[in-house]
Amino acid sequence: MKKHNFNAGPAILPDYTIEKSIEAIKDLNGSGLSLLTISHRSKDFDAIMDGAVAATKRLLDIPEGYSVIFLGGGASTQFYTIPYNFLGTKAAYLDTGTWALGGIKEAKLYGEVEVVASSKDKNYSYIPKGYKIPTDVDYFEICCNNTIEGTEIREDWDVSVPFIADMSSDIFSRPVDVSKYSLIFAGAQKNFAPAGVTMVIIKDAFLEKVVRPVPTMADYRVHVSKNSMFNTPPVFPIFAALKTMEWIEMSGGVKEMEKRAIDRSEKVYAELERNKFFVPTVEDPADRSRMNITFLLKPEYAELETAFLDLAKARGLVGIKGHRSVGGFRASCYNALPMESVDALVATLQEFEKSN
Amino acid sequence: MKKHNFNAGPAILPDYTIEKSIEAIKDLNGSGLSLLTISHRSKDFDAIMDGAVAATKRLLDIPEGYSVIFLGGGASTQFYTIPYNFLGTKAAYLDTGTWALGGIKEAKLYGEVEVVASSKDKNYSYIPKGYKIPTDVDYFEICCNNTIEGTEIREDWDVSVPFIADMSSDIFSRPVDVSKYSLIFAGAQKNFAPAGVTMVIIKDAFLEKVVRPVPTMADYRVHVSKNSMFNTPPVFPIFAALKTMEWIEMSGGVKEMEKRAIDRSEKVYAELERNKFFVPTVEDPADRSRMNITFLLKPEYAELETAFLDLAKARGLVGIKGHRSVGGFRASCYNALPMESVDALVATLQEFEKSN
Repeated sequence: MKKHNFNAGPAILPDYTIEKSIEAIKDLNGSGLSLLTISHRSKDFDAIMDGAVAATKRLLDIPEGYSVIFLGGGASTQFYTIPYNFLGTKAAYLDTGTWALGGIKEAKLYGEVEVVASSKDKNYSYIPKGYKIPTDVDYFEICCNNTIEGTEIREDWDVSVPFIADMSSDIFSRPVDVSKYSLIFAGAQKNFAPAGVTMVIIKDAFLEKVVRPVPTMADYRVHVSKNSMFNTPPVFPIFAALKTMEWIEMSGGVKEMEKRAIDRSEKVYAELERNKFFVPTVEDPADRSRMNITFLLKPEYAELETAFLDLAKARGLVGIKGHRSVGGFRASCYNALPMESVDALVATLQEFEKSN
Repeated sequence: MKKHNFNAGPAILPDYTIEKSIEAIKDLNGSGLSLLTISHRSKDFDAIMDGAVAATKRLLDIPEGYSVIFLGGGASTQFYTIPYNFLGTKAAYLDTGTWALGGIKEAKLYGEVEVVASSKDKNYSYIPKGYKIPTDVDYFEICCNNTIEGTEIREDWDVSVPFIADMSSDIFSRPVDVSKYSLIFAGAQKNFAPAGVTMVIIKDAFLEKVVRPVPTMADYRVHVSKNSMFNTPPVFPIFAALKTMEWIEMSGGVKEMEKRAIDRSEKVYAELERNKFFVPTVEDPADRSRMNITFLLKPEYAELETAFLDLAKARGLVGIKGHRSVGGFRASCYNALPMESVDALVATLQEFEKSN
């Protein structure tokens, strides 16, 4: 049976990435060696690393004065390396849920944290508006897409202090005006690579704002000056990232990824609004994530949860269960998800309605 | 042409690991999904993680009271997370070269560092002896195998303070008496997996010795309590690690790996001592690494360096050039290196002698 991969992360990758990975693991560029056993100081890997940096810069149209680095490990590490480097006295955060709170928690180890606004009052089902960002902070940090709660910020705001964004789960799903940010970070395992690498885009001038001595591996200046090669980088995930970026470019770039994300999410949200059994957890369409569509059975049908999960499984839908911390359902629709899978989801929602 | 992979890391892996990786990337266990796109919260991945932990415990005969965790990123991160967690006032280090110094440098950010001995006076070409380990330190840390300088410590010492060892480049190459250590760490890309994961074996009682608040991702207690699943772990490198451990077990375990390492290294060192052109950089056989055999042309033949590298390349020997910081040559002979490759190296050394 064909599987439809709605996993929230690690998540679906393009077939192109999978196929090129297999080829390179068998033999990289006819070298007689596997991608898994080459030196990170080899010319073959130089081309991969340089290629991944260049593709990122092309895809996001990154202006001069920014560096792109690929770091081992997950985005959660950035939650503390950012304040370790840049939080001297006070930082501002927007509380939009689990991953935003991840950053807020670590920042408190290094200085004062001002939470400018929170949507906790309604289970993080909206993006807070109408708050002021203080001007006496070292930076202001947000999480653009809230994987667990299903909300998303898709505008590149004008912020008068250094602006930092966690784009782990929506990177490459829309054009981004990178010039508005001092630092963007993105764990790979949602939209562009298998788990094990985090991409950081950093304004070079921001590197001068480091406020205290930091250990070498936590020091962005080191990784920038060494082109992500201070230590052995995660070779394979970076290769896979490059292949996904090639696929995005061949497919029409991030503008096309945005169009596909709109098409996918509009189709699913429309069905959720029409279907008498289900309801999206996020009311305001402007706040709804295109990447992670969270939804519930209406309260009167709540006892059918297992029945729907069983049907979804029977129809080949993988990863539909909501995050264990919030329950309900979640359909993650990342860049590589084909419309065929969206249609399978909509058909399953309709089948469930008919049969109950 | 058949390639002989003497890379220092990332390095050769068993064909078994490569083949199983390709199979799983195509389709994991008949799931219809690639290993690269499964959730780390899936049953399939639980089996991989649990399997890797269990295999580590079996292979190294780890006693009760120790935990095994797999962390994203490289071993260099441990250089600072160890003192961040455990260096309250003073720590002792043995200076055996580049990687030992990596730990020493970061420790100084967190407290006083006493370097108990150093072999810097002779370019780190021996393991220092006859020093005292202070008893008033939070821990004593060593790097067992010095990849760049070609020395190795193969005994599990009795140390009266918590004993920490970096076994990044010789893990699984010999039986280890884990009970002597409070913490062992090993980056994967030498002896057991592609780059992107670091294994940590930690004595549970040592976790109680954390001296200051540490960020969540740097907190060993968190990773132990969450079974390495606090955040998304590097799924693919952990899978590959498991496969290599399976291969080690099928091959006869770490005792057999030790036998092979002795056989390989004795053959190469014997040829280096016999050959009139070359000399091992480490004089004392007891201090010579079995993993990284470093050697030089004798001073009178020094101008032949490029000629030898050219011949090595022509004979399919990959990665023979010494580390850029020390020059000369290096043959890294990790667990997966077949004797056939050692024979090819010896034949090339002999061919070079005859033709010059």
